[in-house]
This record gives sequence, C-alpha cells and structure tokens, in this order.
Amino acid sequence: MAPRRKKIYEGKAKILYEGTEPGTLVQYFKDDATAFNAQKKAVIEGKGVLNNRLSEFFMNGLTNIGVPNHFIRRINMREQLIRQVEIVPLEVIVRNFAAGSISKRLGLEEGTLLPRPIVEYSFKNDELGDPMVSEEYIIAFGWATQQDLDDIVSLALRVNDFLSGVFYGVGIKLIDFKIEIGRVWDNDFMRLIVADEISPDSCRLWDMKTGQKLDKDVFRRDLGSLTDAYTEVARRLGLMPANTTSLKSATIN
Amino acid sequence: MAPRRKKIYEGKAKILYEGTEPGTLVQYFKDDATAFNAQKKAVIEGKGVLNNRLSEFFMNGLTNIGVPNHFIRRINMREQLIRQVEIVPLEVIVRNFAAGSISKRLGLEEGTLLPRPIVEYSFKNDELGDPMVSEEYIIAFGWATQQDLDDIVSLALRVNDFLSGVFYGVGIKLIDFKIEIGRVWDNDFMRLIVADEISPDSCRLWDMKTGQKLDKDVFRRDLGSLTDAYTEVARRLGLMPANTTSLKSATIN
Repeated sequence: MAPRRKKIYEGKAKILYEGTEPGTLVQYFKDDATAFNAQKKAVIEGKGVLNNRLSEFFMNGLTNIGVPNHFIRRINMREQLIRQVEIVPLEVIVRNFAAGSISKRLGLEEGTLLPRPIVEYSFKNDELGDPMVSEEYIIAFGWATQQDLDDIVSLALRVNDFLSGVFYGVGIKLIDFKIEIGRVWDNDFMRLIVADEISPDSCRLWDMKTGQKLDKDVFRRDLGSLTDAYTEVARRLGLMPANTTSLKSATIN
Repeated sequence: MAPRRKKIYEGKAKILYEGTEPGTLVQYFKDDATAFNAQKKAVIEGKGVLNNRLSEFFMNGLTNIGVPNHFIRRINMREQLIRQVEIVPLEVIVRNFAAGSISKRLGLEEGTLLPRPIVEYSFKNDELGDPMVSEEYIIAFGWATQQDLDDIVSLALRVNDFLSGVFYGVGIKLIDFKIEIGRVWDNDFMRLIVADEISPDSCRLWDMKTGQKLDKDVFRRDLGSLTDAYTEVARRLGLMPANTTSLKSATIN
C-alpha cells in the first residue's frame, strides 16, 4: 500500500494535503456545503468537482493577466496542486452591489448598486463567526501591515475588474466575492498572492436578465439545486458540453 | 423636410453629428473598412451595425465597473449618443501578446506573450501615418501632461483587465487593443474618459483553441468574411440569437 499523504488542514469545503514538490500543497474539494458558520450543513454531490474546475478556470485567467495566485495545475476531478502560502487571516470581500450582510447592517435592498466597489475584511476565526474588522484593527493586531493592505486592495480591485468582465460576457452580474491572500517568499522577497479558491461558493452571481441566483445563496436560502446553479455557471463559461444542464450527464471539459 | 443635422467630423469608419442635447454628439458607424492608413479600402455590409452594438456592450460594461466613458445610449442600429469630448490626439494601445507593428519592429513572433501588458502611444495624424511616440514626446509637445498620462495608463490597464475577462469567459484571447481618450469638464473639474469605440475594429481577438482571428486583421490580411468574424464575437457575447452565423439572417439583440 502506498503511504497515506499527510493531511495539513481540513476546512469546511476543502482539505489540504502535503504536495508532491516542496513548497506545494494538494487542495482537495469536498462536496460539503456549509452556511451561517456551519450551522447549516449538507453534502451536495458534485459541488467539489465543479468548484475545482471553476477555481482552476478563474485562477488561470488571473495568471494570464498577471495577477499572482497560488494555482499551479489541476491534478484530477477533485484535486489541484497549489503553492503553499502563509495565509493572511482575513477574508477580503469586494462588493459591487448590496447583498447579504451589508444589506442587513445598512438596511440596503439587495441588488442596490453601491457608489463604488467597496473592499471590506473579516477576521478568519470560526469561533468568533468571522467578524468584520476595519483596517485599524488589522494593522493594530498585526494581521497585515499598511503596505500589505495597499497591495491587497489593489489585487482585490484587479480581480474585481477581471471577474466582472468574465461574468458580464456571459450574462451574469458579479454582486460580490471573497478572496483570501497568502504570503510567499521568492528569493527572500515577500509577495502577496491570491489563494484559497474562486468559485460560486465564494461569489454572489445573479443572472443579468432574470436575477436568478447562481451561487451559494441557492443553498443558504433553499432556492433549488445548488449543483444545477453551479453547472449553469460552468456551462456558460464553456466548461461543460453545450447541451448539459446537470453534472450527472456530463464530463467537465 | 426636417433640417439636416450638422456634421461635426467624418473619419474613416464613423461620422459625428451634433447631438440632441448640449454636450452630446451622435456617433454614426459606417460600413467602410480601411487599413494601412486607408491604402486598403472596402465597404463591408453590416460592419457598422455590429460595431455600434458591440461598442455599446463594452462601454456599458466599463460603466458598470466605474470606468468613465463617453457612451450615453444607443439610438438605432447605426447610431449612438455620446458625450462630446476634447479628444487627446493619441491612440492608446495596450498589448498583451505580440502582433502587428510590435512583431515587425522587434522581430517577435505573433502570439508571443509579452513580459507584462505594454501601453504605447501613436500620435493621431493621418498624414504622418499615426507615428508611434514616447511619453517624452507627448509631454514635450503638450498633447498630454504627466498627470494625464498617469491617469491614461491606469484607465487603459483597467480596460485591459476588464476586456481580458470578457473575452476569456467566451474563449477568446485579447491580443491587444486601442482606445482613445477624451477630456470632459464637470463643474470646471477636468476628467479623462474613454472615447471613440471598442470593437473588433480596435482589438485583436484570437480564438483560444484554434487561433482563428476574429478582428480587423481578417480584412487587413484577406482571411475571409469580416462580417462573419464580428458576428461570431457578438454571438459568443449573447448579442445574437444562438444559432445565427451570419448577420443577414439575424436581428441583433
């Protein structure tokens, strides 16, 4: 029997194993869906396969335009090789339209266009429920420096411009998204790169014409089949054969 | 008979008429195609209709992400209402991959990935054949200031991130593109905005899988039907009914 790989970390939707080369990890996408800080849970067959492929697609697109990120290559249906990073303990959220927590906190109707894209941060801590934090907090507690935050904002806004374009071209409105940022050292020079994943788990995506939700809100709010929603996103981006509507009848391109 | 509108300017592919409101112009898209500084000419039936619709689509997308531009609304199949600007006499070119003049001048094979996106400028002057100029020239001759150029580069790179995303999502590689920039005054505050047009006349677009050209190089190099190429771009972006391959059998959405 081959020796079992060492598990480095298990999160709610992904597992990290030691990688095949130094400085790399294997990122495994589970079918587990959680919401409201894991108070709501389910297994959604095929979600991991779709997110693995979609995250590959978006990260490759970012690489093409020179936005550094952790993606190296997809290994199989559920796994991808990534660069090992020291994760910055923040969720970096970019909002174009109000939805979710900002709608609740500020009393804004979901779908309201914001005056400009707004970057906000949550401190990654499950016990505390990922509380929203200001730049002051981040710098005072040493989670990132002012220079890091300047770089993070400029990365986040470039990702926003690019992803807004990707989705605009296929009739989808990018309401908001979350990324995580990791530190890597190249010849002792520290760089910040996009890490974690980019998928319908981490974006809010509304069909431009109908307003139909094509993201994890389908699960959070019991709006139908999550797999069908994610498959529709993959289909529009040319990642599924044209006539497929369900993952079960399809091979992912 | 209604009084004839005043023609403000006639270029190779478009005509500008006085607008319906102060500070506006009507931009009319002709079917004329020219290349090599108008040494090669033809009338391509339907090109103006496609470019009018495509430029509307891209400019609206830029508006969505907060990149200011001249587009107000489409009036009909061939005309759009735009803001009147004082045009900066430069063609602003952003290159992601080598093609066209940079390939010739530097001996780079077409399609070579550049080390990073490169912004370059041509002085808009037909008699001189739109010569390439450096930032030094631009500032010395007063066509734009250093501050203008900083703003122009940041506009151009945002347009590049967004358009790269739009095309990436539909399987097209954005090789390079050209924009023009105009000055407007809002409450005596001068701003630079994207002007002219964004269309397959002003971009190089290659199919990601086959390398097929879907831009004006089809005309420049006699590679087939230009209308079919532009229709294919419009079709992938959801601007034509799904089964259409030729403009003649289609209504544009």
